[in-house]
Amino acid sequence: MLTSGSEMYQLAHRLFPICRSVTGDGVRATLQILGEELPTLQVREVASGTPCFDWTVPREWNIRDAYVLDPTGIKIIDFRASNLHVVGYSTPIDAEMDLEELDQHLYSLPEQPDAIPYITSYYKERWGFCLSHEQRNALKPGKYRVRIDSELKDGALTFGECILPGDSEEEIFLSTYICHPSLANNELSGPCVTTYLAKWLAEMPRRYTYRIIFIPETIGSITYLSMHAETMKQRVKAGFNVTCVGDNRTFSYLPSRAGNSLADSAALHVLGHVYPDFKRYSYLDRGSDERQYCSPGIDLPVATIMRSKYGEYPEYHTSLDNMELISPEGLFGAYEALMRCLQCIEADFVPRATVPCEPQLGKRGLYPTLSTKESGMTVRGMMNLLAYADGTRSLLEIAELINQPMWDLMPIADRLRQEGLIQRLSGHTKKA
Amino acid sequence: MLTSGSEMYQLAHRLFPICRSVTGDGVRATLQILGEELPTLQVREVASGTPCFDWTVPREWNIRDAYVLDPTGIKIIDFRASNLHVVGYSTPIDAEMDLEELDQHLYSLPEQPDAIPYITSYYKERWGFCLSHEQRNALKPGKYRVRIDSELKDGALTFGECILPGDSEEEIFLSTYICHPSLANNELSGPCVTTYLAKWLAEMPRRYTYRIIFIPETIGSITYLSMHAETMKQRVKAGFNVTCVGDNRTFSYLPSRAGNSLADSAALHVLGHVYPDFKRYSYLDRGSDERQYCSPGIDLPVATIMRSKYGEYPEYHTSLDNMELISPEGLFGAYEALMRCLQCIEADFVPRATVPCEPQLGKRGLYPTLSTKESGMTVRGMMNLLAYADGTRSLLEIAELINQPMWDLMPIADRLRQEGLIQRLSGHTKKA
Amino acid sequence: MLTSGSEMYQLAHRLFPICRSVTGDGVRATLQILGEELPTLQVREVASGTPCFDWTVPREWNIRDAYVLDPTGIKIIDFRASNLHVVGYSTPIDAEMDLEELDQHLYSLPEQPDAIPYITSYYKERWGFCLSHEQRNALKPGKYRVRIDSELKDGALTFGECILPGDSEEEIFLSTYICHPSLANNELSGPCVTTYLAKWLAEMPRRYTYRIIFIPETIGSITYLSMHAETMKQRVKAGFNVTCVGDNRTFSYLPSRAGNSLADSAALHVLGHVYPDFKRYSYLDRGSDERQYCSPGIDLPVATIMRSKYGEYPEYHTSLDNMELISPEGLFGAYEALMRCLQCIEADFVPRATVPCEPQLGKRGLYPTLSTKESGMTVRGMMNLLAYADGTRSLLEIAELINQPMWDLMPIADRLRQEGLIQRLSGHTKKA
Repeated sequence: MLTSGSEMYQLAHRLFPICRSVTGDGVRATLQILGEELPTLQVREVASGTPCFDWTVPREWNIRDAYVLDPTGIKIIDFRASNLHVVGYSTPIDAEMDLEELDQHLYSLPEQPDAIPYITSYYKERWGFCLSHEQRNALKPGKYRVRIDSELKDGALTFGECILPGDSEEEIFLSTYICHPSLANNELSGPCVTTYLAKWLAEMPRRYTYRIIFIPETIGSITYLSMHAETMKQRVKAGFNVTCVGDNRTFSYLPSRAGNSLADSAALHVLGHVYPDFKRYSYLDRGSDERQYCSPGIDLPVATIMRSKYGEYPEYHTSLDNMELISPEGLFGAYEALMRCLQCIEADFVPRATVPCEPQLGKRGLYPTLSTKESGMTVRGMMNLLAYADGTRSLLEIAELINQPMWDLMPIADRLRQEGLIQRLSGHTKKA
Repeated sequence: MLTSGSEMYQLAHRLFPICRSVTGDGVRATLQILGEELPTLQVREVASGTPCFDWTVPREWNIRDAYVLDPTGIKIIDFRASNLHVVGYSTPIDAEMDLEELDQHLYSLPEQPDAIPYITSYYKERWGFCLSHEQRNALKPGKYRVRIDSELKDGALTFGECILPGDSEEEIFLSTYICHPSLANNELSGPCVTTYLAKWLAEMPRRYTYRIIFIPETIGSITYLSMHAETMKQRVKAGFNVTCVGDNRTFSYLPSRAGNSLADSAALHVLGHVYPDFKRYSYLDRGSDERQYCSPGIDLPVATIMRSKYGEYPEYHTSLDNMELISPEGLFGAYEALMRCLQCIEADFVPRATVPCEPQLGKRGLYPTLSTKESGMTVRGMMNLLAYADGTRSLLEIAELINQPMWDLMPIADRLRQEGLIQRLSGHTKKA
Repeated sequence: MLTSGSEMYQLAHRLFPICRSVTGDGVRATLQILGEELPTLQVREVASGTPCFDWTVPREWNIRDAYVLDPTGIKIIDFRASNLHVVGYSTPIDAEMDLEELDQHLYSLPEQPDAIPYITSYYKERWGFCLSHEQRNALKPGKYRVRIDSELKDGALTFGECILPGDSEEEIFLSTYICHPSLANNELSGPCVTTYLAKWLAEMPRRYTYRIIFIPETIGSITYLSMHAETMKQRVKAGFNVTCVGDNRTFSYLPSRAGNSLADSAALHVLGHVYPDFKRYSYLDRGSDERQYCSPGIDLPVATIMRSKYGEYPEYHTSLDNMELISPEGLFGAYEALMRCLQCIEADFVPRATVPCEPQLGKRGLYPTLSTKESGMTVRGMMNLLAYADGTRSLLEIAELINQPMWDLMPIADRLRQEGLIQRLSGHTKKA
């Protein structure tokens, strides 16, 4: 278990320069580095052209270099300075053209004139360069030399999968994405936090089996679901999409489509006690892989805990979402919150009191023997747990009902089970 | 489809002078004029004395003339000046009496001294005159000549019925009443708006069959239900009681007794988007024929959209509820709101997505091909519709959930059906 | 039926000096006095050592005298002045000791320096004295003579039970406790109010059978449940724990664990109409015998109406909770509120309208014959009752829904039943 976010930040720092996309060698390089941390990580490939529900695995894209020379021959845009300069999935080009033509292929943000935007075009062939609006405004008429040394060809979609078996076949699911190039909060934070959650899980006793995947967003989750949805629909009891978990400005929660899954309950409980000012979004605000995991007919119980949510912070999808935006503290806060969620889910069960009426706690040393004006308060947590241990509510639901953190109730529940005062009915309650 | 309220206002103007009551020639004259607009309108009669549940069809009342001459022989109250001057269902009288005796039969409103009140006595035989409190105060002692040339005899209760067959036997029900004499908002507005809704419905393709009735209030709806309740309980999926739809001051909503019928959902959705400041009443505020339609054992899904609600505006049930109170704009606003409700109900269906995960909208030309910071927002409505097309919610319920007007979703739903991305499960969801 | 609280106050005054505990002669003396008021009260005894669920009936405790003499021989603490001076269930002692040792056995309240605290030690053998903090501070070093002439031996737990048979085997349950020594609001108010409720019930026609018990708190309710829980779980439809019903500062409500029982509905309805500013507690604030009655596996529908709740008023469990704290007005207010609850429960039934649509009230003399602007309001209660008499709601639920006191609806319901317009389906609705 980590005690700070520095390792996660170092990992993000190492991964940051790699040019990732939904396919290609950048994804392979990324998974290789993650595999150094996670020996059980399996790298999988699915061939271009493979049908996945309504989609098809696209051709693989790789890029070696790209630049623009101005009329005087100076390299004014250079892929090696920032891989955001090239529109993702750009087709190759090697040509001279005047500014007017070049300008049709340039992308910038007038309202954020110092930022390079992040643009992709996976499903329509085009090429383009991204640059700051300031730089664009300074371009002078003349002949420009334009070169993108890229390749779009049949290959594979690459992803990582890590299965950690538990006592039960019932699964907890973690998903994060590895398709963003040099962007930090969205999205190197997700793979880094997920990697360290997986390292922690690998070393602890697990009631549940953990299915942890590192995929390209959208096409990756669709591809993965087209392979595993039927199994997952039977087994997955809770899941989290791990994204935007790097900065230190706030916490955010985005529900599953159903909104009342075990993952939602755990997320709301943990954030409510750890960071009560968290921002609560609606499923209408969705925008990441929950769109697939919670889609009609899939309906996995996947909720999302974030720091600053994609689309909601000014640096989102620009060169300003860099290593300075995220921090060890930001990463560690998200790691801790998700870890607490997993701990709550692991420790959850439906307790039932074994004796009618209140048990006599005193004879078991669980109750103060002298009844005073104050003593009524001291064993409140234990009494409340027993009062609601009626076999219809799980420990997590009781914790929420009596407004105590689940982690305060866990040792009490352990003690009551040792004393034989509660028994375990099942691992969790059924949700609607 | 109308584009203004002028025809409806003209129709109200033509009907205004007729002396209507729960039975009699005024009702027949009214239905004849409505029949000129609605060739499919059938006039029905039910004989006096016919038992209807706990009630009996009353004797028919007709009146030719009525007046009061003052001690100097001047006609100070004249039925021909305003049919409100005579208490509805007054028995005949032809007598001289002094002011003291006459005064027992006079009705006026001290708090609205310039208004003639609207008074009826259907089920106890009496006679009376209504006048302004100002006029009443000016009456001088002496002998008055009093004459009411009316007749109460076995005859019939008359109503109009218009059945517009649709693709399905399932019915939408519209009811309005034609028993009020010279009163405008409550109630010539209802028959006029309903007539033009029926004209519009007659000319459009109809999924549902429409049952549209023009009846006297209370005894008319009870009589009609005693004839058709069993059929209607099986067939009617939504209904509206059309009353008080003429002035331009506000919109009002009164729920069905259950409160969650398709008619309620449509009314709330339409008013919420068209006139969000509408006044929301409770079923405890009821006062019109929903009292019968929603009664225990009948329980039809009938909601009410109004402009200023009966009992809630100062001119209610007085001579001040006249043609100046209502307006073409007021009538047209109600017509449009009810038309939108019927459009929503006609267009509603339970969609189910046909592919797991999100479909690839791009290959169908439904999605921008270049992913930019802004492009995520542009197809939000389509994505939201697909995200909730899980076979448990109707389009109207999805529209409400994602807070978009149903009429914005209709063309999107059409397009998705054409593309085969959603299929139609059923016409509406079952309500509790 | 009482018309003031003076008899209840006199009864409390007579009982106040008796030294009660969970067992012993004080309980017997108390029940004998209550038996003078309630001839049907049966006194029951359960032998020490009898197992009761997770508990065992404790040994019986009796005390004849107790005092402390200061170094000069003056009796500075005297059981005969206040039985609160001795820790309940103190073991006997007869010894000399210096102040330092004595002080280990003294209990006082620094924050309420003029109050003697109420302390007990039922399940661990110890002895002790309670005194005001002022007095404790004035104690001087030296040899003290300490004597408690008490006895702890096998005997019995004593309680009172009064069964009042009704037309039905279905039961209403009242429970109050008689284990507190000279304390007034908590708890002589409960037995006194319960005694007079029982006297009132004994003389009225009863639809339900009433089970009324006077027990020691906690061990008494557990003992009683261990004997009768199975019968009570089948029969008890509503119950009230009667405690802290003596002062005149506020009303309080503490729900059953389920929170939606008939007892809860009645309590909320009565307090909502009689004292709308009542304090509403949560089941998490529980602290009396509802802890047993509502425990998992017992789950009786027992709610609590109080004046100032135990633990929530400054005099609680000190010598300041005396006869000056409670008042005839305080006792009478609680008596009336509980009586209204029982009246509501006795009068409750599920009505169903016998005719479709609204009945014709006029022909039965139930409706004004002249329809005027005002007349619509006059029969609103009757019409609302009929409008909701659909066989799914009880009269109490309808009263709550239409926001009218149940006691206003009772005569209307009687009249409608006489007219045959509603019929009785069952005595109450099933709760979840």
